[in-house]
Amino acid sequence: MTTAERTLRTEHDLLGDFEVPETAYYGVHTLRAMSNFGITGTPISAHPTLVVALARVKQAAAQANRDLGLLDHGKAAVIITACEEIAAGQLHDQFTVDVIQGGAGTSTNMNVNEVVANRALEHLGHRKGDYQYLHPIEDVNLGQSTNDVYPTAVKIAVHAAVLELLQAMTHLRTAFAAKGAEFADVLKIGRTQLQDAVPMTLGQEFSAFATTLGEDEQRLAEAAALLTEINLGGTAIGTGLNAHPDYARLACDHLSTLTALPLVTAADLVEATQDVGVFVQLSGVLKRIAVKLSKTCNDLRLLSSGPQAGLGELNLPKVQAGSSIMPGKVNPVVPEVVNQVAYEAIGNDMTITMAAEAGQLQLNAFEPIIAHSLLKSVRHLTAACTTLADRCVRGITANTDRLRRQVEESIGLVTVLNPVIGYDAASALARDALTSGRTITDLALESGILTRVQLDALLAPAVLVPSRGAL
Amino acid sequence: MTTAERTLRTEHDLLGDFEVPETAYYGVHTLRAMSNFGITGTPISAHPTLVVALARVKQAAAQANRDLGLLDHGKAAVIITACEEIAAGQLHDQFTVDVIQGGAGTSTNMNVNEVVANRALEHLGHRKGDYQYLHPIEDVNLGQSTNDVYPTAVKIAVHAAVLELLQAMTHLRTAFAAKGAEFADVLKIGRTQLQDAVPMTLGQEFSAFATTLGEDEQRLAEAAALLTEINLGGTAIGTGLNAHPDYARLACDHLSTLTALPLVTAADLVEATQDVGVFVQLSGVLKRIAVKLSKTCNDLRLLSSGPQAGLGELNLPKVQAGSSIMPGKVNPVVPEVVNQVAYEAIGNDMTITMAAEAGQLQLNAFEPIIAHSLLKSVRHLTAACTTLADRCVRGITANTDRLRRQVEESIGLVTVLNPVIGYDAASALARDALTSGRTITDLALESGILTRVQLDALLAPAVLVPSRGAL
Amino acid sequence: MTTAERTLRTEHDLLGDFEVPETAYYGVHTLRAMSNFGITGTPISAHPTLVVALARVKQAAAQANRDLGLLDHGKAAVIITACEEIAAGQLHDQFTVDVIQGGAGTSTNMNVNEVVANRALEHLGHRKGDYQYLHPIEDVNLGQSTNDVYPTAVKIAVHAAVLELLQAMTHLRTAFAAKGAEFADVLKIGRTQLQDAVPMTLGQEFSAFATTLGEDEQRLAEAAALLTEINLGGTAIGTGLNAHPDYARLACDHLSTLTALPLVTAADLVEATQDVGVFVQLSGVLKRIAVKLSKTCNDLRLLSSGPQAGLGELNLPKVQAGSSIMPGKVNPVVPEVVNQVAYEAIGNDMTITMAAEAGQLQLNAFEPIIAHSLLKSVRHLTAACTTLADRCVRGITANTDRLRRQVEESIGLVTVLNPVIGYDAASALARDALTSGRTITDLALESGILTRVQLDALLAPAVLVPSRGAL
Amino acid sequence: MTTAERTLRTEHDLLGDFEVPETAYYGVHTLRAMSNFGITGTPISAHPTLVVALARVKQAAAQANRDLGLLDHGKAAVIITACEEIAAGQLHDQFTVDVIQGGAGTSTNMNVNEVVANRALEHLGHRKGDYQYLHPIEDVNLGQSTNDVYPTAVKIAVHAAVLELLQAMTHLRTAFAAKGAEFADVLKIGRTQLQDAVPMTLGQEFSAFATTLGEDEQRLAEAAALLTEINLGGTAIGTGLNAHPDYARLACDHLSTLTALPLVTAADLVEATQDVGVFVQLSGVLKRIAVKLSKTCNDLRLLSSGPQAGLGELNLPKVQAGSSIMPGKVNPVVPEVVNQVAYEAIGNDMTITMAAEAGQLQLNAFEPIIAHSLLKSVRHLTAACTTLADRCVRGITANTDRLRRQVEESIGLVTVLNPVIGYDAASALARDALTSGRTITDLALESGILTRVQLDALLAPAVLVPSRGAL
Repeated sequence: MTTAERTLRTEHDLLGDFEVPETAYYGVHTLRAMSNFGITGTPISAHPTLVVALARVKQAAAQANRDLGLLDHGKAAVIITACEEIAAGQLHDQFTVDVIQGGAGTSTNMNVNEVVANRALEHLGHRKGDYQYLHPIEDVNLGQSTNDVYPTAVKIAVHAAVLELLQAMTHLRTAFAAKGAEFADVLKIGRTQLQDAVPMTLGQEFSAFATTLGEDEQRLAEAAALLTEINLGGTAIGTGLNAHPDYARLACDHLSTLTALPLVTAADLVEATQDVGVFVQLSGVLKRIAVKLSKTCNDLRLLSSGPQAGLGELNLPKVQAGSSIMPGKVNPVVPEVVNQVAYEAIGNDMTITMAAEAGQLQLNAFEPIIAHSLLKSVRHLTAACTTLADRCVRGITANTDRLRRQVEESIGLVTVLNPVIGYDAASALARDALTSGRTITDLALESGILTRVQLDALLAPAVLVPSRGAL
Repeated sequence: MTTAERTLRTEHDLLGDFEVPETAYYGVHTLRAMSNFGITGTPISAHPTLVVALARVKQAAAQANRDLGLLDHGKAAVIITACEEIAAGQLHDQFTVDVIQGGAGTSTNMNVNEVVANRALEHLGHRKGDYQYLHPIEDVNLGQSTNDVYPTAVKIAVHAAVLELLQAMTHLRTAFAAKGAEFADVLKIGRTQLQDAVPMTLGQEFSAFATTLGEDEQRLAEAAALLTEINLGGTAIGTGLNAHPDYARLACDHLSTLTALPLVTAADLVEATQDVGVFVQLSGVLKRIAVKLSKTCNDLRLLSSGPQAGLGELNLPKVQAGSSIMPGKVNPVVPEVVNQVAYEAIGNDMTITMAAEAGQLQLNAFEPIIAHSLLKSVRHLTAACTTLADRCVRGITANTDRLRRQVEESIGLVTVLNPVIGYDAASALARDALTSGRTITDLALESGILTRVQLDALLAPAVLVPSRGAL
Repeated sequence: MTTAERTLRTEHDLLGDFEVPETAYYGVHTLRAMSNFGITGTPISAHPTLVVALARVKQAAAQANRDLGLLDHGKAAVIITACEEIAAGQLHDQFTVDVIQGGAGTSTNMNVNEVVANRALEHLGHRKGDYQYLHPIEDVNLGQSTNDVYPTAVKIAVHAAVLELLQAMTHLRTAFAAKGAEFADVLKIGRTQLQDAVPMTLGQEFSAFATTLGEDEQRLAEAAALLTEINLGGTAIGTGLNAHPDYARLACDHLSTLTALPLVTAADLVEATQDVGVFVQLSGVLKRIAVKLSKTCNDLRLLSSGPQAGLGELNLPKVQAGSSIMPGKVNPVVPEVVNQVAYEAIGNDMTITMAAEAGQLQLNAFEPIIAHSLLKSVRHLTAACTTLADRCVRGITANTDRLRRQVEESIGLVTVLNPVIGYDAASALARDALTSGRTITDLALESGILTRVQLDALLAPAVLVPSRGAL
Repeated sequence: MTTAERTLRTEHDLLGDFEVPETAYYGVHTLRAMSNFGITGTPISAHPTLVVALARVKQAAAQANRDLGLLDHGKAAVIITACEEIAAGQLHDQFTVDVIQGGAGTSTNMNVNEVVANRALEHLGHRKGDYQYLHPIEDVNLGQSTNDVYPTAVKIAVHAAVLELLQAMTHLRTAFAAKGAEFADVLKIGRTQLQDAVPMTLGQEFSAFATTLGEDEQRLAEAAALLTEINLGGTAIGTGLNAHPDYARLACDHLSTLTALPLVTAADLVEATQDVGVFVQLSGVLKRIAVKLSKTCNDLRLLSSGPQAGLGELNLPKVQAGSSIMPGKVNPVVPEVVNQVAYEAIGNDMTITMAAEAGQLQLNAFEPIIAHSLLKSVRHLTAACTTLADRCVRGITANTDRLRRQVEESIGLVTVLNPVIGYDAASALARDALTSGRTITDLALESGILTRVQLDALLAPAVLVPSRGAL
């Protein structure tokens, strides 16, 4: 029977024989995992950065084993070619095990071992499944264990995803900063505890959104840097059993080159194999980002509330009709979707916390849900930041007149007048204003306490922005 | 040496001798626990309902063992007297072990065993510590294990605390309902997604706060009812080892009488001993209550934002000066404190979730943190509801004129006019209003599309409240 | 140009014209939403129960409007046909808006309005997009708002999903109960705080797993029953604006028939429109289920730890090879995947909590993430229960000899001997055993304290299971 | 009437007159807050580091205002003296407002203003309440707002608490490292997914506990460093309104000196006033610490399970009797209490997350619950680390013989033999061992595959610890 005729091939594992579709690059271990873990219906190919990272780890391992003379050059060459193809996205549909899986990532590792092996076999001119020529475990997985391969790949995958998030955050921060500059002269009433407080500029408000995001970027970059410590070479539990003494160093070097990351091997590999602290740390930072994005979107929705019976300070761009019953209603749907992504990321942090705490002894068996949750959070936050920048922030306009009028009518103005007219006169003005329903400005100008010129000087935006020199 | 002279007595446990202050009703086990668990500095007496419940369990056990002839009448009588005294609050300061403690509640159980024994010894005319006459474990703890005593007491304690929360919720609901009636004719603009939507009455808004709280009360009552299933008599792991076959039934009957609760013994005592599902369930309901209280307070703060540059619909009672820098500023401090209690209860739910999940095999060793967290949540939510009712809701007033003006000026009015003047005319009106900055009402009256009488009829509060018959 | 030739059609909304692919049953609103919400890449069709429920709501509304004479019979007929087709799964690929979306579900509602309208138009012999003959909003959405349609559909969808979860839980409970019966005579050491405690049977342990699941099923059924209260007819904010007075009742009746659920219209529709308490409640119960499933799986993994250096009480079925490096290693991958589903459900509960708390005034804009999270939790828990039953529990075997030997060697045995030989003799035996390293059994038999017959009687499984009569 | 005779004095605020006990250093604002916020019954003095930090902020402000000529030297001197007294702990009982309070910390700020003022008045020879000589707001709070004072003080307080936590962590890490050295030669079976894996040393296991803690210390120190950026001088909303241009710089300098911290004023004070990201970050790190402490304690409890029917690898020190029913039972109560502290800290993180997300516009009104939760977490984690080190880790002993025996009997040994005897021979050995029930060691020695000397060489601890040079 030729390959062309065969539709199934037989593979074998410790549980016995299993029929594998001839077209499949994956094999028996992948198929067993597919039948065992029918949880979400979402395959690991939904996380392309993870698939690419796995291929790079396998490639680095093959290069290291080749250098050490443990893997012959012919096998190494085709393994490397297969890994390059996977990294280029050519075989993503072969990564079929469920994103939620038992076994600490073994099924994912087996999936990549099998796809690499079978693709490499084809390059050698053999049929898929002819493992006597090149074996998924003995060759592709040589000197490796799921327990060092999988966490290493997850770190690289998450790092790549985080770089995209950082770009999206910078993009959003730039959009906020541009609005901060645009609104630098727009006077408004600042609010504490939702109560009118003292004047500020709308520019300060938007600049604060930019500043807060900038701090988050710094924290995220710091957390991402921690991902570059890997445990490749530790094998099963970090003792390096069955790996060549030089393997860890060589594999780390090759992997650094392939990923352009400054990877280092952990000093305590036993600890590094069981510890998922770096993921908890990163997830905590993602939660922080989520909390602050959510707060920012809450503010945008609040400031654009109305159009008539709300604060009505801002106009968000209209991106879709808002109601199936109320003609003309438009809603702040972009901030709303960002809020929801934030809630999801906060929930994911809880999932990651539970999974991390559940690790036992020399391994955390629950890394798959950690990886899945982290990659979801990072990717969705990336989309949220980009969407918020492009479909909302950049098109925001201000109701400048309304904002200035509120300042002049606000009781909060007395705090500004305080140092000029004295506490007693200020208090009296406030009392009069609240009793009469008239504005501080009107009363002050009318009573001659100060002139229009003086008032304008007190409310000049420049006055409200303390110069850095002064501080 | 007489009692009066002795300042320390020597007690003994499996670790050896230990000096106990003569004045202390607790003994060696309590003292060891105090030195082992110096975590919070808060003793279990901070939860008086728990101390009372523990006394009642000890009392019921003594009565059952007396009925069964296992405990002589003289000992039983003084144990019962001591328990009554504790239940009356006379010895609360003797409950000194930390609220966060290892050992699944054993230290708490030992603390109560020792206090009861030493107080009972005094009633017998003996000195504290003369356990040969009446023993903390052999007599007070007879037929019991921490593993059935402690969960049973926690359930009774939590139940008592929940009854107080239910009262406070009813009190708050009544306050909201009264405002719902008071504001039944106050017209306002309803908002969806913070955007002006269609008219409603302020009465409907406050009635909804009452309704939502009423539903929470029902859920809470249902969850509380589940607390009446106890595992007393299961002893160490639910097999009832070392308890008389009739003990569980008798003790449950006595405890029902003492607590006035319809207690039942769990059908599967092995399961009941290890399971903390009832606490998880209750905590989930407390979280629900917290979520909705928080949402309600968010609304109150939003509706009372201003006084000038906010929504300005409501005036909350002024209960304290709001600022150390801004004269005259008053803040919504009561809703704010309720929000924070809600956040705490939500955090406590997470603590309880973690502790519940961590139970292993025949016991959950982490019930002390579950009990502590639950009792805190219940007590703080009780105070929050009472405070919100008495220091905020009852004194709320509405800015009726502003509210009605907003309705008449609102673009949302076109949805009301829709069925009367047709979709096309309504859309044209809306367009004109947004372009000219004039109100729907003015434009409609001016163009003769409808008369003032017609308009008032469309906006009559009665029209906005769908009668139940219609539904 | 004929339909066959046209590849794009032009649709229009308040933002202007938009080109829609001729093959698409959805329209301009759906397309704008698709471009606005590119967050997850997962369309709402990933939740088929939601799509079906939406179709049923549209169908019930059309039937009610037809009965009231508001929708002509011809239009009603084709709308109903289109809804039936959707409910039968024929157009699922047309439900393309992202599962995470802003706008409180408006985009989902618009998506279904458009698909129904365009399919109905085809039945009328018109081309898609010829809305002058049948309009997505004016006809399909007649008397409706997203704010009553969407929550109603979500409740029905979640209810349907919960019924499947209940079935899966019953299936799993049955599997545990069967093992409980099978292992009724297998004696073992019970453990509290991971320390050897007193004897029990393995049957009791498995029966407890069944009992605990049974309680969860009851709580879930109670929470699901709360989903039958709907707000259809409340329209935008619960005042029923623009819906016929009889509409709510009629639509509820039709929907009850279509779904075979005992639906009722909420008494306070204003409250029902803004409240998501029922989802918080349900999520709390799902979290409870997750917590207990996780605890159960922790126990299974612990009891099957080994094979040599662990507890080694149970053998879980081997479902796949466990290691890419250690030959012959098999891992408890099925319990592990269930643990992870549990962590995900607990995280989802946090997401839902945040989203629920964030609701403001007359609406919760964040129901899409609530719906998505709930449906994910329910579906994954369903898969987890089924997988656990079929791929793990049913094939579990016990190492009976090892278990019995541990009982006989255990120091915990002295507690059993206590009432027979007295506390002092028991304590002495315990001391001897720990010092000599010999077993309680050996020492007791050797010293003649009791005979083999007596010992066997004390350890008879029947003795360890307190009869219900005794309680 | 003299002071001696007067028992009440009358104070005044915007709500009117209020009677204050003459003995009280606090005044009307504190009293109103006490009656408004009767939530927990725990006063802010429960957080002494916060009281001290508040005093230091007031002192720095007074020094800055004195330097600027805004506060006369006489007043400044007595304010400074009063602050020194508070910092020395002399007036802690006067800090009486509830730890959970509305108003963004205003009541706490008022409390300190009043205590400082009244104590300063005494130093001036005046009676408490004679604010015409020195005023709580106009003098003590000069140039300040709650919104810059309170967050600044919270940061300093938390920083001080974190330093203690760091010390406790170092103490615990040292204890683990010492055990790592002590057990360096103790061979044992490592486990992944609770299944026997490959050999390692017990020293590696304890060293990993130390390493993981060391990483946490680094993360904590990094997070603590972020606390040194303060917003003092920003006043109400960060615009610095009513503060002298040089005030922020001077106050920061004085405060740095007083606290010995390298404080810096935030570059964007508007952002710094509203942002609580630093607390979210720190709480995320505390959660990470909690997760890993909990995992470590789970391992300790697991490894010490038994004494007979468990893993039985470790003996934890006996610190108290474990059971009221089972003679001789001792439980791992110290790890258990640490687990519970971890669950509490994880719950507190959720509370902080909710509170942080709820901040609106220019201020986060919910900082009091953030401060309370953070300080609780830090303090309880400190106690937990110290307790774990002193009452558990330092006294741990190993069952060395049992551990070595398990290695020699373990099937996991074949992985070690793999490179020596070849994969096929290893697999055959494994099969024989599982079938016959005999050990790998026996079979290998018996069949002459390798000698005892060779075996011992393969299992030498040195072999299992990969040298750093090799990596």
